Amino acid sequence: MLEIDILAVVPGLLEGPFSHSILHRAEEKKLLKVRVIDLRTFGYGNHKQIDDYAFGGGAGMVLMAQPLADAIRMLQSQGQYDEIIYLTPDGKTFNQHMANHLSLKSRLLLICGHYKGIDERVREKFVTMEISIGDYVLSGGELAAAVVVDAIGRLIPGVLSDETSALTDSFQDDLLAPPVYTRPAEWEGMTVPDILLSGHQAKIDEWRYEQSLERTRDRRPDLLAREDSL
Amino acid sequence: MLEIDILAVVPGLLEGPFSHSILHRAEEKKLLKVRVIDLRTFGYGNHKQIDDYAFGGGAGMVLMAQPLADAIRMLQSQGQYDEIIYLTPDGKTFNQHMANHLSLKSRLLLICGHYKGIDERVREKFVTMEISIGDYVLSGGELAAAVVVDAIGRLIPGVLSDETSALTDSFQDDLLAPPVYTRPAEWEGMTVPDILLSGHQAKIDEWRYEQSLERTRDRRPDLLAREDSL
Repeated sequence: MLEIDILAVVPGLLEGPFSHSILHRAEEKKLLKVRVIDLRTFGYGNHKQIDDYAFGGGAGMVLMAQPLADAIRMLQSQGQYDEIIYLTPDGKTFNQHMANHLSLKSRLLLICGHYKGIDERVREKFVTMEISIGDYVLSGGELAAAVVVDAIGRLIPGVLSDETSALTDSFQDDLLAPPVYTRPAEWEGMTVPDILLSGHQAKIDEWRYEQSLERTRDRRPDLLAREDSL
Repeated sequence: MLEIDILAVVPGLLEGPFSHSILHRAEEKKLLKVRVIDLRTFGYGNHKQIDDYAFGGGAGMVLMAQPLADAIRMLQSQGQYDEIIYLTPDGKTFNQHMANHLSLKSRLLLICGHYKGIDERVREKFVTMEISIGDYVLSGGELAAAVVVDAIGRLIPGVLSDETSALTDSFQDDLLAPPVYTRPAEWEGMTVPDILLSGHQAKIDEWRYEQSLERTRDRRPDLLAREDSL
């Protein structure tokens, strides 16, 4: 059982992702438990303030240290986390290896930034891992958290109905997946490669591997060269 | 006004992202119009079938060509798209440059894969651009679509309340953002860098640039080296 807590500024952004599809099934099977905590309940005063202007000026608000610290400490009092992860564009770029690694943990906290980010001191004091889902900026960390939970959640053994399905996905072996086809064999004048209709499984596997390799060479030669580490 | 149509297998996954926060505001301001179309309404028979087994065997279902083609043609009959984008792990890796580029378009169609993907022939026939949001596998393209729409949507002029906010984000200049701090200046024994309290804007800007550069050198030296193109 993997427990993931998500500390969010806009919890509503996470309504859809966790009530549908694979993650919902994972929760029903008691393999995954996702909980979304609203940072605002830890805010100050009547307005439940959680952000303030950035020191040094400039556009964009910053999430204050105290509400975050209060929330993290309350959550830690319910059990220690394997990792306290801050989702931020300057974190380590998330990939399938990290997803595999994190799917084996027991308890994770994901902190969603918002606006210009969180006070740097919270990062220094609490955060054990910083993750970016890619080289682009989102309006908040909530969608990034949803992506991380989805990528991790489907790797928990027993979540996918057929476990070999995840093993043949793109990136599991640093190769892109081969093209896929389904019925009909001829569609609008376009045919399926003969080999796939041959029934000769060894040759089909060989063709798929060649296609994966070719597609990776063509589209992502960097994957073939790289040595991935956490 | 940017119109984005999303062809999805699990539309429920997209309920949260587009009814909250910045994208909701963009829609209210008539700067962005996002529409989610359920592929299943184009499915076959009583069960509205949209997928079938992969030719050549193996785990995982494949989305059939015909329902996708029917949906795309129906949508095209309402107006041409600037790009028909398929979200797939073997697509071009999404980044801030692509987000900037796409935020200037008028009408986009995003196709969400699911299960093992879509029949290759649909990619050959209709798709003009293939995007991956990162080197990991999701249970479907829906969250990837949400990420792309969020990254694009916030760049449309007028969506963010203060436009300089987006310009100083990570990646806009291929640099990571500098650390941010907000009140109080001293928190649990940790202080804010003096320079940020100095009121000397030119020196603050210089410090921020140095911090950006240092953080990028330290965490993402690849960004400093790279020549990005679409």
